[in-house]
Amino acid sequence: MTGKQGLMLAASLISLFVFSAQRCFAAEEVGQVIVRIAELDIVPAELDAYKIMLKKEIETSIRVEPGVLTLYAVSIKGHPEQIRLFEMYRDAASYESHLQSPHFKAYKVQTQGMVKNLRLIKTDPILLGIQTKMSSGARPY
Amino acid sequence: MTGKQGLMLAASLISLFVFSAQRCFAAEEVGQVIVRIAELDIVPAELDAYKIMLKKEIETSIRVEPGVLTLYAVSIKGHPEQIRLFEMYRDAASYESHLQSPHFKAYKVQTQGMVKNLRLIKTDPILLGIQTKMSSGARPY
Repeated sequence: MTGKQGLMLAASLISLFVFSAQRCFAAEEVGQVIVRIAELDIVPAELDAYKIMLKKEIETSIRVEPGVLTLYAVSIKGHPEQIRLFEMYRDAASYESHLQSPHFKAYKVQTQGMVKNLRLIKTDPILLGIQTKMSSGARPY
Repeated sequence: MTGKQGLMLAASLISLFVFSAQRCFAAEEVGQVIVRIAELDIVPAELDAYKIMLKKEIETSIRVEPGVLTLYAVSIKGHPEQIRLFEMYRDAASYESHLQSPHFKAYKVQTQGMVKNLRLIKTDPILLGIQTKMSSGARPY
């Protein structure tokens, strides 16, 4: 089974769960969750190579680190070299463990010359709302 | 049942689902998902009032709009008046419908004088990784 097939299978399995709970957690309820935003400027000539490395890093982290809750990567529309990451970790230990993981360290070394600028932003959660109302017709997210 | 009890109940119910799928969706797999980032500067004297309005808007949107996938609100650490929203909608129609919803319109009117500056950023998803490996010991997120 390829990675893509695996992802599609996961999506199909998830779509079987039909439940109507919505999750919305305020600061006092999310416990020790760490939320970070990263703003990156990538060397334009290295953008394709960088995105391959980034995707690999995200896929591996989500697969092997249960404490990595989300790693969302987007680029600013019209400025593909301006990338934003929205990162959630279960707690400080999960975040530290992520920084020390072999896949994250490899990503940092491999992408060192590709990243022109990196701004890491620490945040305080106010409210983290996520939809979990899913049916077989729902798109994955 | 109060709203908080409802949230705790939802968290408890969700924690009963133990499954090991991880979701990681690349641009070509997330279909028509719309991801927007909002950067807001709030009038400091209005911050508490604004946060009450914002939380109400997020809670209502997640509860009544299945097409609103995430509304994450955080503030920059040390700068509580600088707020960032990470918003995901199922598709363009869900986003348009959200903008036209009575609760969103009410939020816009009520917070008009509280928001000093608003920057809306359109994005292109690269990879949206979310952990769904949950056990009864997992914290909500």
